[in-house]
Amino acid sequence: MSPHPDPIYLDHNATTPIHPEVLEAMLPYLSTHFGNPSSSHVYGRRTREAVEYGRAQVAALIGASPEEIVFTSGGIEANNLAIRGVAQAAPAGRHLVTSVIEHPATEGPCAFLETEGWRVTRLGVDGLGRVRPSDAVAALVEGTALLTIMHANNETGALQPVADLARLAHERGAVVHTDAAQSAGKVPMNVDELGVDLLSIVGHKLYAPKGIGALYVGRGTPLKPVLLGSPGDLRSGPLDPPPIVGLGTACEIAARELEAESTRLRRMRDDLWERLQAAIPGILLNGHPTERLPNTLNVRFPGVSGSAILAAAPGIAASTGAACHAGQEHGSAVLLAMGLDRVEALGAVRLSLGRLVVASQVVDVARLLTEAWQQAKGTSR
Amino acid sequence: MSPHPDPIYLDHNATTPIHPEVLEAMLPYLSTHFGNPSSSHVYGRRTREAVEYGRAQVAALIGASPEEIVFTSGGIEANNLAIRGVAQAAPAGRHLVTSVIEHPATEGPCAFLETEGWRVTRLGVDGLGRVRPSDAVAALVEGTALLTIMHANNETGALQPVADLARLAHERGAVVHTDAAQSAGKVPMNVDELGVDLLSIVGHKLYAPKGIGALYVGRGTPLKPVLLGSPGDLRSGPLDPPPIVGLGTACEIAARELEAESTRLRRMRDDLWERLQAAIPGILLNGHPTERLPNTLNVRFPGVSGSAILAAAPGIAASTGAACHAGQEHGSAVLLAMGLDRVEALGAVRLSLGRLVVASQVVDVARLLTEAWQQAKGTSR
Repeated sequence: MSPHPDPIYLDHNATTPIHPEVLEAMLPYLSTHFGNPSSSHVYGRRTREAVEYGRAQVAALIGASPEEIVFTSGGIEANNLAIRGVAQAAPAGRHLVTSVIEHPATEGPCAFLETEGWRVTRLGVDGLGRVRPSDAVAALVEGTALLTIMHANNETGALQPVADLARLAHERGAVVHTDAAQSAGKVPMNVDELGVDLLSIVGHKLYAPKGIGALYVGRGTPLKPVLLGSPGDLRSGPLDPPPIVGLGTACEIAARELEAESTRLRRMRDDLWERLQAAIPGILLNGHPTERLPNTLNVRFPGVSGSAILAAAPGIAASTGAACHAGQEHGSAVLLAMGLDRVEALGAVRLSLGRLVVASQVVDVARLLTEAWQQAKGTSR
Repeated sequence: MSPHPDPIYLDHNATTPIHPEVLEAMLPYLSTHFGNPSSSHVYGRRTREAVEYGRAQVAALIGASPEEIVFTSGGIEANNLAIRGVAQAAPAGRHLVTSVIEHPATEGPCAFLETEGWRVTRLGVDGLGRVRPSDAVAALVEGTALLTIMHANNETGALQPVADLARLAHERGAVVHTDAAQSAGKVPMNVDELGVDLLSIVGHKLYAPKGIGALYVGRGTPLKPVLLGSPGDLRSGPLDPPPIVGLGTACEIAARELEAESTRLRRMRDDLWERLQAAIPGILLNGHPTERLPNTLNVRFPGVSGSAILAAAPGIAASTGAACHAGQEHGSAVLLAMGLDRVEALGAVRLSLGRLVVASQVVDVARLLTEAWQQAKGTSR
């Protein structure tokens, strides 16, 4: 045993390790099979075939057709393509509807369009972290070009009523996008049942490598490329076989094991939550008790900040919020939008479980967090 | 021996295999060290440190400072960021100067700006495939926002007079970008000597993985992000440690071995060219005899098309032009711009050497191409 073993990893919503089976599938494309998929010769043909196989695997996870999958360099590009691509293709009604709890990958392009003269309506959320469809009814107007609402929130795990929102948006003629970065592979997903036109997937959230994502583009969806370079192509870059093979394999594993793995995660998470409630009087859940990703537990500790808890618990690796906001000092915007005050929001710790966590560790995690709370409470008072 | 061994790979300008030392450096970041570099905990710290080391390695190859390196998902994103980023930061003089022989990753964003009301001047080239500085003098005006000219052409390997062009552009107050996708790692490169403000590097052209690139952004260069998602950040996406470690390692190897490897490639290439000239009367070189990448040999065969040659030479893998234009039937736009007629342009074959080629294969390549020419000539007459 190393004197300082690695902390227990409870930050799967920030990023996941590459699944060993995914890496194994990728390795030949990192060595022997290196051709440019655009090349006509055998080196190109081999990687082209691998890319098309990966495309079919990604499509299968969400009930889409392979030709509806566009590969991107990740979630930022997928969401930029979806949101700005629709804006460029359908600039007539310069109005879009989104929410106040979106990831920066969505809020960024929305704010950009605002600087270009678009009107952006940002829906609030209820106390459990969910957008209210009734708010969408009021916000959607004739001429709304786009509704973009995430499928599951990255901080609380709250599942959004995307199918209801999509129906309402379509009644008004708007295109519908959902960022499924956090939910793809964690909950069953079918683009027809969701009724969306565009859906973003991010590889490194589901045990595929970083630097790869996909955008589902339903047939007939008006969309123009955002990164320019190869006329007629939405992605417009050369295809990147190793991570595409990785994403495809990860999607196939996720589909195959979704039921068993989500059950396992939910049990561990609920066990952890019961233990924390028993040990820490006044601890509260942030987010929806049931309409939530099976792996996510966002809690707030009474009387101490989340960062103090994490500093006092070096045996676990978790975060106070989204990784891309690490260091924020004003409390999570998502939690503030749910009605928490600043002190309450600063008490939050996000525990996101995944494949690196085994059931026997739950007792340790509960103990480490309880001890950290006792220690931090003593220090801060 | 396999009954069908893989063809000899002479398409290094389309893409290169990952160097074994590069893959070895990447592997820990594809398995154990998977953290999100934005995370505060030890998993994040480890990958953050790896990213910063890679950044320094990339900077060293081109004589830049680490903080002047922005990682991108590849050449498309690097060039879009450079060209559209300058356009967004300095929209006053809506004029830019580029050339007719640029890669689509440059021409794409230039054409996009044209649709947005920019004036785009595209400089022609001389018969050897080089932009004339005197043409730039005439094109550059007060208020020209940007000059973007590639450092070496991907089809002919012709090195462009970037330092001269940069000096002229700076006299007019324009920002200068060069796409060094094909030349980085192949010829010595120093951003101060070139005098450029922005320079694009593409990983998969220099034995790093696909899906990674870098843009050098000289201090003080006016630039705004193109992909939006994280305020204040040019890239705005999460950093992708494995390919960044790969690109850094590849840049270090390139710097270390540049002189020896470029000498080896130039010798093989010139040997091949001598053998082809001796065997094939009327064969001609496309591009500059000396001001050229050491690995590139673009030739035209008398009386037959390049695609007929390649079809008759299954023992080698090369292309008639850029991989991203495979299948073009009108002749390379680069060669047409040099004054070749359509039939001449269709006779072209691009042979791009690299690490997969050893000196003993040159005789085989010359023989295979000569036999293919004889066979194709017989068929086509």
